[in-house]
Amino acid sequence: MSEFIPPLEMMVEAFRRLPGVGRKSAERMAFGVLDMDEDQLNAFVSSIVGAKQSIHACPECGNITASELCPICASAERDRSIICVVEDSKAVISFEKIKEFGGVYHVLGGVISPRGGKSPQDLNLASLPERITSNGVKEVMIATNATVEGETTAMYVSRIIKPTGVKITRLAYGIPVGADIEYADKLTLLRAIEGRREF
Amino acid sequence: MSEFIPPLEMMVEAFRRLPGVGRKSAERMAFGVLDMDEDQLNAFVSSIVGAKQSIHACPECGNITASELCPICASAERDRSIICVVEDSKAVISFEKIKEFGGVYHVLGGVISPRGGKSPQDLNLASLPERITSNGVKEVMIATNATVEGETTAMYVSRIIKPTGVKITRLAYGIPVGADIEYADKLTLLRAIEGRREF
Repeated sequence: MSEFIPPLEMMVEAFRRLPGVGRKSAERMAFGVLDMDEDQLNAFVSSIVGAKQSIHACPECGNITASELCPICASAERDRSIICVVEDSKAVISFEKIKEFGGVYHVLGGVISPRGGKSPQDLNLASLPERITSNGVKEVMIATNATVEGETTAMYVSRIIKPTGVKITRLAYGIPVGADIEYADKLTLLRAIEGRREF
Repeated sequence: MSEFIPPLEMMVEAFRRLPGVGRKSAERMAFGVLDMDEDQLNAFVSSIVGAKQSIHACPECGNITASELCPICASAERDRSIICVVEDSKAVISFEKIKEFGGVYHVLGGVISPRGGKSPQDLNLASLPERITSNGVKEVMIATNATVEGETTAMYVSRIIKPTGVKITRLAYGIPVGADIEYADKLTLLRAIEGRREF
């Protein structure tokens, strides 16, 4: 496959390693970089490095943030008695888009996946029971993706927090089975929130 | 559109500025970067910066190279009596893939495009007449893309080199009109070379 000179090939391969990028897209992107002048390259690289340096996990919920707490945990207007447990920050963004959920989140940072080499210990889960009891949380809505790994993780999370006595709900199967929350349309997500049922 | 925290939004925008990258792809790529550990980020960034630093234009033909001359100009096996004039290095790669053209190239580095802000002076063209006369070149095959800008540029190049008395040919219309050489299949490109005609 390598008709390219080595440094170009390396750049193409670097782009290919990003999620959702195929060979042809990676080639276009690499040539796009070659077409940049020095200022454009610096801006490109520093926006990547800068984002990576300034973004970290919110100590409260695990969502990505560039401040001390994430904007949701820092807000005085959110209902702290309901926690929505999601796989990642992309799911938080999807929920925030529909402007319907007023609670707070708990971002697991992945799902239990033997294939992906993720065990329950790799998830942001240890602080959740304590968070529930010390904040008087009334409901935990588990909103992992409707995949095998997501279901397994939902099951595991519910088992971990059951001793707290909190009400545990699961998103209704409005989301098409097998799909990613990130790609659900707003109405489907809304129906899924409305139809959530006791775990 | 900005549900993202500012540093993330900046990274998404940086990816979006690359050719062929839409909003959703840029978001996936940005989250991919956030998932990288420090070593992966360093490898990613240095492959981009490294490629950009080591790759420059071949002083002979304008093709991209990481060495003094590009591999084609440096090769003793290429026929220097026929020059193929192309828009960019991507076209060189397409020609090299079919392993049928044994001559050398001249890479213009773009096309004349009032819309794109490119005038004839911005092209790597000044050295071409001298290159033809001092190397005893017998034929110049103009292989710009089959677009309006490509045609205009082909016309302009032919006018510039006509005084040298060299035979000027143009790729046959085997390539679908309006398409990019980069995307032509090998057979189509082969037919286009075989059917080339006098300008």
